[in-house]
Amino acid sequence: MNKPAKPKDFEPLKVTTGPLPASSKIYVSPAAAPDLRVPFREIGLHASAGEPPVRVYDTSGPYTDPQAAIHVEKGLPRARTAWVLERGGVEAYNGRVIKPEDNGNVGQKHLAKAFPIAHQPLRGDGSRPLTQLQCARAGIITKEMIYVAARENLGREQALANARATIADGESFGAAIPEYVTPEFVRDEIARGRAIIPCNINHPELEPMIIGRNFLVKINANIGNSAVTSSVEEEVEKMVWAIRWGADTVMDLSTGRNIHNTREWIIRNSPVPIGTVPIYQALEKVNGDPVKLDWEVYKDTLIEQCEQGVDYFTIHAGVRLGYIHLTADRVTGIVSRGGSIMAKWCLAHHKESFLYEHFDEICDLMAKYDVSFSLGDGLRPGSIADANDAAQFAELETLGELTKIAWEKGCQVMIEGPGHVPMHKIKINMEKQLRECGEAPFYTLGPLTTDIAPGYDHITSAIGAAMIGWFGTAMLCYVTPKEHLGLPNRDDVKEGVITYKIAAHAADLAKGHPAAQAWDDAMSRARFSFRWEDQFNLSLDPERALAFHDETLPKEAHKVAHFCSMCGPKFCSMKITQDVRDYAAKLNDKTFGMAEMSKKFVELGGEVYVPQDSDKP
Amino acid sequence: MNKPAKPKDFEPLKVTTGPLPASSKIYVSPAAAPDLRVPFREIGLHASAGEPPVRVYDTSGPYTDPQAAIHVEKGLPRARTAWVLERGGVEAYNGRVIKPEDNGNVGQKHLAKAFPIAHQPLRGDGSRPLTQLQCARAGIITKEMIYVAARENLGREQALANARATIADGESFGAAIPEYVTPEFVRDEIARGRAIIPCNINHPELEPMIIGRNFLVKINANIGNSAVTSSVEEEVEKMVWAIRWGADTVMDLSTGRNIHNTREWIIRNSPVPIGTVPIYQALEKVNGDPVKLDWEVYKDTLIEQCEQGVDYFTIHAGVRLGYIHLTADRVTGIVSRGGSIMAKWCLAHHKESFLYEHFDEICDLMAKYDVSFSLGDGLRPGSIADANDAAQFAELETLGELTKIAWEKGCQVMIEGPGHVPMHKIKINMEKQLRECGEAPFYTLGPLTTDIAPGYDHITSAIGAAMIGWFGTAMLCYVTPKEHLGLPNRDDVKEGVITYKIAAHAADLAKGHPAAQAWDDAMSRARFSFRWEDQFNLSLDPERALAFHDETLPKEAHKVAHFCSMCGPKFCSMKITQDVRDYAAKLNDKTFGMAEMSKKFVELGGEVYVPQDSDKP
Repeated sequence: MNKPAKPKDFEPLKVTTGPLPASSKIYVSPAAAPDLRVPFREIGLHASAGEPPVRVYDTSGPYTDPQAAIHVEKGLPRARTAWVLERGGVEAYNGRVIKPEDNGNVGQKHLAKAFPIAHQPLRGDGSRPLTQLQCARAGIITKEMIYVAARENLGREQALANARATIADGESFGAAIPEYVTPEFVRDEIARGRAIIPCNINHPELEPMIIGRNFLVKINANIGNSAVTSSVEEEVEKMVWAIRWGADTVMDLSTGRNIHNTREWIIRNSPVPIGTVPIYQALEKVNGDPVKLDWEVYKDTLIEQCEQGVDYFTIHAGVRLGYIHLTADRVTGIVSRGGSIMAKWCLAHHKESFLYEHFDEICDLMAKYDVSFSLGDGLRPGSIADANDAAQFAELETLGELTKIAWEKGCQVMIEGPGHVPMHKIKINMEKQLRECGEAPFYTLGPLTTDIAPGYDHITSAIGAAMIGWFGTAMLCYVTPKEHLGLPNRDDVKEGVITYKIAAHAADLAKGHPAAQAWDDAMSRARFSFRWEDQFNLSLDPERALAFHDETLPKEAHKVAHFCSMCGPKFCSMKITQDVRDYAAKLNDKTFGMAEMSKKFVELGGEVYVPQDSDKP
Repeated sequence: MNKPAKPKDFEPLKVTTGPLPASSKIYVSPAAAPDLRVPFREIGLHASAGEPPVRVYDTSGPYTDPQAAIHVEKGLPRARTAWVLERGGVEAYNGRVIKPEDNGNVGQKHLAKAFPIAHQPLRGDGSRPLTQLQCARAGIITKEMIYVAARENLGREQALANARATIADGESFGAAIPEYVTPEFVRDEIARGRAIIPCNINHPELEPMIIGRNFLVKINANIGNSAVTSSVEEEVEKMVWAIRWGADTVMDLSTGRNIHNTREWIIRNSPVPIGTVPIYQALEKVNGDPVKLDWEVYKDTLIEQCEQGVDYFTIHAGVRLGYIHLTADRVTGIVSRGGSIMAKWCLAHHKESFLYEHFDEICDLMAKYDVSFSLGDGLRPGSIADANDAAQFAELETLGELTKIAWEKGCQVMIEGPGHVPMHKIKINMEKQLRECGEAPFYTLGPLTTDIAPGYDHITSAIGAAMIGWFGTAMLCYVTPKEHLGLPNRDDVKEGVITYKIAAHAADLAKGHPAAQAWDDAMSRARFSFRWEDQFNLSLDPERALAFHDETLPKEAHKVAHFCSMCGPKFCSMKITQDVRDYAAKLNDKTFGMAEMSKKFVELGGEVYVPQDSDKP
């Protein structure tokens, strides 16, 4: 007989904590709201650098703060509740009662444990502006706006003050990126609908962030339970893991059983906005039959998730009955899950989509909690062949129409985009989205620029993501190497997040973000000075950079050596550049006195280097 | 006492052989030269597909042909000798005697075994056009031209004949990609200097390929011995491994000892063009001191490599004395190894570069063997901060000047390009190169679009490579994940090659190559029809696609199942699309009779699917 296992409820949940190498968490309190603590990561450099730490944007929340006490069973501190309450216009009330179908009618044996603490939900009482959009239009600068302004300004003070810094140039395709982000600039962008701060008033654990074309390009990571393989513990850890490497928002795409309980654990422990696709849960409530969906069950699901604190909803309200036949001749038909659910419903009932028909009511509901729209692209192309077709663009036009309705109702809105698009067809997506949707933020999945590399679709899509981010997309939904093949594991999530940080940062550089290049320059100076540890620590993935270096040159001494494995110790092209600098410094002008200068160079001492290893030409 | 090891010389060298999954090697004989056998790979599809095999470009040589007898000690068949001899204008002669310094004066104990067979070299006797450029200008269509025309036409016959095929659109930025490639088109492109066929007459093992803006975008993989870790065996296998996954050319960047012998093994076994950087070997001959280099030792090295059969030389003749001080204020100075060697030489002697001074003689020599120029960018930027600066562009202008001289001398020319360039500065590189260098093919390293991700520079650079390939770059030099950190191993070489195949193919799609999309469409049809095995086999990396799938759904049955791990067996968005098609087929027109159509749909049978798993929204 086996010894009975310790009941699972008594085991504290474990998540990854602790800082990244050489990194410290710092908090900045903006002058406009000294009670706020805006987080940054500072990467310390070797003393020989003679440079201050490099400050970078930090999505990782308290988990990387050694001072923070992490208790997953309690959730993160709920600092933002005070901000919401001090603005007023909200009421606490007894929320909807949790029903068995919220967790997929799972039996007691398989029911995931409920989050131990119940919080009473808040909702707007209609007495004053509630959403960030309503506040912005009323001229109110919220604490969320002050917070994101400070957060986005990362390095800009230094860039403006420091003559050494590279002056960023760039081509932003009509974006209006300011030298310095003020809370008023944030307010104005939100009021114009050009940016959103996804921040349900019932998600007070949130560290606010902004999504918009005139801010840093953001990335989203998808997680979600698999009925068979995932547990609550795993899903919370997936979220913590994704934000550790840089995910700005996380979408919980869970289906099947335990949806409600799993989501509660995630939200209570998430410092980043959480997005969902409510139709997935609604479908569970009707036993998986799209035909049985109706407005009542969908509305019930929205309320449930609004009360839990979901920050944005993907809603496929643009999949209209009249567009569905446009997909009939596609190579890959409808590949969006939400899109296909709605298409099935529309066809079965031969009715207009209930999401489209009830859009006003959806807006009214979401506005009470400040849940943002992510208008879903249910008809996005699933292959190069189907890119930019009539179905895709018809839906996009409808999303533009819905954007205006949602704005009218005071809701924040972003728009989802493709998918699979060859390079030459990417820009038209961005241009049409800006035009149709009044510059509401665009949020794209990749796009993948070719279909022929399953196993490498993080790369096929990073190419498209970097480009569309440059053209103006505000947030990039990551794609992992497992796309089209299976469910991402821990390594895949990290690979996807890092790959998308690359795409987003490459876009920031190309757009001419005033401070983006500071990070690149710090890396390049470290590289040129052979500060190996600094190069590892400044990498988006310090662990991999160190491990790759050690494969070739594992000795500790090599990490402070003035050479690298490409050229070896006796020859070094970067060392030669030092000769060039010494030489140039001795030149009084650019008139080269041939024989004389030759002598001078010998005086300056031309060491002899012996090449030893392979290199690029 | 240990038993003495079997002498190494008696062990046959092992390289990777055998076809890729579901693939057959086929050979096509063009009507214009029925003795030629142009290789392709055909990927067979499942019988249920009802589609012919997908024919793809094949760089892998005889190693993937089960009919071919591979004997590394004998080298590949030397079919092209007959083509060269039948054209005439060449003489066989006793080549330069191999000297100890050719192998870095390595002692007998460490000397790599010599290739067992000695072939007498050929050279032009001046009696008639020799290089492909000279032939093209004289109106001669060579067998190499016929061969590459057939090779490039991959799928175009079918594309033109098959009404089902997607008509490729695209934006080629002024390129002139034909619907169908004729030998005359190839001749004309070569005559204009817009394309090259790197094909030393002493490399008759070659399967000719073409590099030019109006042909498929090509990729290069770098290999090279490391003094400590590599052997002849490893280098030959690296080459075979790189071409197995799609490398169109291979550069041998070996330094240190055994350069000559290692290179001989590589060339004798290589079906793809081999490029080198002769200054690396020249430097070995002067014991690694750049200051001691001179024209005589460099010329001696060129002759040695011309006789061995190197197909193209990187020559950094644009690093002029007067440009060197332009790099003094760079963040990362001179990062090209060849560039820094020449800079050091110029500074030490305070003289103009001997490569620049002797450029005419270099041309005369290379023309005798038809070795192509790859004019090196020794002053390329090594960081985002240094992109597109005065030093880089001054050198590019000189490369343009040298291109015209080389053309005058009958030499084929391509131009090397950067390096590290943010996205918004990529296009100007291409435009300036086309303008300065008279449309000679551009050959770039990446470029990397950000500096902050060591460990992922295959990805930071694939973004830039795909874009510059689209804009007109003819060949992309791969970057592996080990870039900046260490020496690539076998996995890194594969990862680099596949990543660059993605970039090149994405560029072909975007340029509007008439047949490129056929591969994507075959993949997408397989995906839509749940032909899992076909998806794996059509992937650039069938092994990884299969392995990733099996991580989530390892059972054999799942490979023929009509579902995937994203949605599970009970719900499937692609299945719903079939409902859409059935529905659309029943519609006589687009007038929707609501109630009636609803009934019809029920008649058509709307199965019930139960979603089970996570998915993209």
